Amino acid sequence: MFLNVRRYLSNDSDSEDDGADKYNKYSELQRFKVHRCSLDLPGIVQLQARYANGNEAEFSTQQGASGPKLVVVMVGLPARGKSYIVKKLKRYLTWLQYDTKIFNVGNLRRNMNATKNLLEVPELLGQRRHSAAFFDPDNNDAKNLRDRMALECLDELIDWMNNGGRVGIHDATNSTVNRRKLILDHIQQKLSCKVLFVESICNDKKTVEANMRLKLSGPDYKNMDPDEALNDFRKRVVNYEKAYEPISEEEEQSNMQYCKLINVGKKVIAHNIQGYLSGQCIFYLMNFNLVERQIWLTRHGESTDNIIGRIGGNACLSAKGRRFAECLAKFISKQKIAFRQQQLAKHKADVEAEQQSDPSAIPAPEPPEKNFHVWTSLLQRTIDTVEHIDPKEFGIMHIRFLNEIYAGLYEEMTYREIEQLYPNEYNARKNNKLYYRYPGMGGESYLDVIHRVNPLIVELERMTDNILIVTHQVVLRIILAYFLDVDKESVPDMPVPLHTIYCLEPKPYGTKLTKWRYDEDTNWFLEEE
Amino acid sequence: MFLNVRRYLSNDSDSEDDGADKYNKYSELQRFKVHRCSLDLPGIVQLQARYANGNEAEFSTQQGASGPKLVVVMVGLPARGKSYIVKKLKRYLTWLQYDTKIFNVGNLRRNMNATKNLLEVPELLGQRRHSAAFFDPDNNDAKNLRDRMALECLDELIDWMNNGGRVGIHDATNSTVNRRKLILDHIQQKLSCKVLFVESICNDKKTVEANMRLKLSGPDYKNMDPDEALNDFRKRVVNYEKAYEPISEEEEQSNMQYCKLINVGKKVIAHNIQGYLSGQCIFYLMNFNLVERQIWLTRHGESTDNIIGRIGGNACLSAKGRRFAECLAKFISKQKIAFRQQQLAKHKADVEAEQQSDPSAIPAPEPPEKNFHVWTSLLQRTIDTVEHIDPKEFGIMHIRFLNEIYAGLYEEMTYREIEQLYPNEYNARKNNKLYYRYPGMGGESYLDVIHRVNPLIVELERMTDNILIVTHQVVLRIILAYFLDVDKESVPDMPVPLHTIYCLEPKPYGTKLTKWRYDEDTNWFLEEE
Repeated sequence: MFLNVRRYLSNDSDSEDDGADKYNKYSELQRFKVHRCSLDLPGIVQLQARYANGNEAEFSTQQGASGPKLVVVMVGLPARGKSYIVKKLKRYLTWLQYDTKIFNVGNLRRNMNATKNLLEVPELLGQRRHSAAFFDPDNNDAKNLRDRMALECLDELIDWMNNGGRVGIHDATNSTVNRRKLILDHIQQKLSCKVLFVESICNDKKTVEANMRLKLSGPDYKNMDPDEALNDFRKRVVNYEKAYEPISEEEEQSNMQYCKLINVGKKVIAHNIQGYLSGQCIFYLMNFNLVERQIWLTRHGESTDNIIGRIGGNACLSAKGRRFAECLAKFISKQKIAFRQQQLAKHKADVEAEQQSDPSAIPAPEPPEKNFHVWTSLLQRTIDTVEHIDPKEFGIMHIRFLNEIYAGLYEEMTYREIEQLYPNEYNARKNNKLYYRYPGMGGESYLDVIHRVNPLIVELERMTDNILIVTHQVVLRIILAYFLDVDKESVPDMPVPLHTIYCLEPKPYGTKLTKWRYDEDTNWFLEEE
Repeated sequence: MFLNVRRYLSNDSDSEDDGADKYNKYSELQRFKVHRCSLDLPGIVQLQARYANGNEAEFSTQQGASGPKLVVVMVGLPARGKSYIVKKLKRYLTWLQYDTKIFNVGNLRRNMNATKNLLEVPELLGQRRHSAAFFDPDNNDAKNLRDRMALECLDELIDWMNNGGRVGIHDATNSTVNRRKLILDHIQQKLSCKVLFVESICNDKKTVEANMRLKLSGPDYKNMDPDEALNDFRKRVVNYEKAYEPISEEEEQSNMQYCKLINVGKKVIAHNIQGYLSGQCIFYLMNFNLVERQIWLTRHGESTDNIIGRIGGNACLSAKGRRFAECLAKFISKQKIAFRQQQLAKHKADVEAEQQSDPSAIPAPEPPEKNFHVWTSLLQRTIDTVEHIDPKEFGIMHIRFLNEIYAGLYEEMTYREIEQLYPNEYNARKNNKLYYRYPGMGGESYLDVIHRVNPLIVELERMTDNILIVTHQVVLRIILAYFLDVDKESVPDMPVPLHTIYCLEPKPYGTKLTKWRYDEDTNWFLEEE
């Protein structure tokens, strides 16, 4: 009578445990009696339910139809890295298959400048809505308009959440107690879900100044004289600072769920964190840094199975694969030296600049060389690929979590054989590679691999060292998808050829990618555009 | 030339990334050039290294020979739950295979009372070293003795760490800035590892009072009149409070790594958290609660494979297994109702007590009924076991992480067959079931399963709902081992028969266990002693 699990059932996950409010009022599943569950791993955890009328439920495969929802409300002065945090969080949650969207009040304000008809406030139409005067806390008309814009933006978020969105992020300064109360009340009237306030505080003047300069290339200032722009932006920040009220202990009285990130996660304060999703967000936000470093990624060298097109298995390298492995060791050694030289050159320049401004200053000591890690899977073809890398220079580890997707019954078969022997399975996979789980004990889907790799992603965010990861096609796609913010539909078809090395460098506004291809003729790597 | 991975290689994990200090000075492996690596999953991550002299390294299988070390230093007034936190953290880390030990200053002090010869302070020998006077901050002799005892205890910890320990926990009040500086300096002189201060703060008077009463049954007061004891203990706390200096922002200047837990994790402040191990500790500490609830655990009903002794596979239930499944549904429904009745009875008693002390008080509303979750693995035998449980009453989920240990090549074989066909493997497993990994693609060890189940353990700690988990022999052993603090050597041999239900109730000082056995004759469950 009750619904049995179907193998390809994908994203019918659970929802949050919040006591009495047992039923998800706002989802498409409101006709069902769906229990709110605590654990939420979209696509991994499978929910059993039936219609309240006793019929079996056919789960929608559309993402976000059920499951927990969360509204994240940002708090903080301009130039404190809110947008950085917001983009990163969105990228991570999207990668984990939570449908996530950012609602930016600044963009709405700029749209209003363009259309001038969204809200009619005649006395303000003459003012540019990013000039400092617009942000003067004593400018009451402007304040009211800013509140209305914040709510306007919030309404868009709420609409989106009611149409299946999972995590909506309200990206604005929300810098007073009153504004936050307004926002919270507004959400609680219209949406049944948890709200997490995330405040970004930065006391480090250098970081704030750097953030301000980044802003000048942004949309508010693109046609403005840079000096005038910086000046105006500084005034805007001063105006915000006048009225800024950090999240306070008084706000804790109302059981507000919040997280303060101080100086890029150097200090973190978390209050009343409830639910799996909020906990994951905070764990993620606690674990990132802005240190310059390189993450090198590649697949193993060509294996004997690659030649005949067999999937899975535990083959050794082909002759070609062994040549790649030899060359890889030389290449990565060279890159390690180049990075160190760059680091020393930068240090020298910094010391010289400091000495010019203050000749009596004691020069900072040379920074230590970064560790360089090498991670492979436990499979022979990745272990053999790092065979020539010197463990005296590199810390080499073999990690089960980096193993290739496990193809269950189809291990060591070719796609052609699968197509001929199991045409239904072959087509099911073709139609939905992301959700398709290989049959047989232990068979995995892309989603299974995402959740298996998740702790390594958090670890990569936490690390400040350089690293080379030698892994497999599916795992490489999944890691690249995280760093490059690839659409989930595109992940299973990303081209990641053998004998190609990717270098990722996390930067304040995204990840810089360079690509190198092994060239057999020259027995060296060529940089691709 | 370089060492290849051996399949049973167990605990040769990495160490922390802390910049220049590349080599682990104090471990047994100091002869090796071992790179400090960031990720640390004992037994899962495998490190490649060789002797500095070029010989291949045979890794010690002894736990903790290499890898990161951490000293946790507790801070907080008496009766603020320090011992609770310390025991829990030790249990969790030990379960994750980090060799962890608690060094309690109170126990050392009590030993001194007994032997009176550890430190000779004649003027104090007359005083009982738990009487309130001993804790008076103006009692300088006693203060010096307390400092010396704290360092004495710390030296024991340092010795133990230098002999292979991984996480040493200094369990004392450490309630002044000076004391913490003394401790930190002392560690840094003698040990090269990170130090994490964990401060427990509790402003909730009810909790503190309850903790104080618990103390009276402890070793300091066991032969004392209860009223006198409570009085003395209260005075002791007052004396501590006089001198107590919570971890302050000034201490942040020296880059102190700390975590404050306020009111049982309601609020958490983390500062300068570095390294994988510290991050995991804090994530764990952020995710627990003291709410009364029940965790029910059982294996699936007997399967057709169980009858013939086949391991792994995806068999259905036998007729006997199906009878168990039917009875289980009735039993768990009954337990759900019983828990609810208990909850309501307690509520009623609370309301009556309150009304007696204040007849005008408005009675608190009836608490909502707890959600009751049911988790199974993705294997048919667990799904069939919950077939009769009503999804209108229970939130049912199927989770891959709860699947049985994957036996790789030996799936669907009997132990007898393995013994006959692969005697070497059979013996290797018999000699070290914990570290033995089944051969073949995807084959797992107990340690692999521990790391796979880890996120579910954190989730169980976070949840406040009731739950029934229907899983498999190895996974059940591993979950029980966590809650019941079972020695790692004993885990693989724990008897966990079919058709037996375990009920775990987390309590302030450990986990209460009750056991129920399915009786075929009466078709019901009998409670075992």
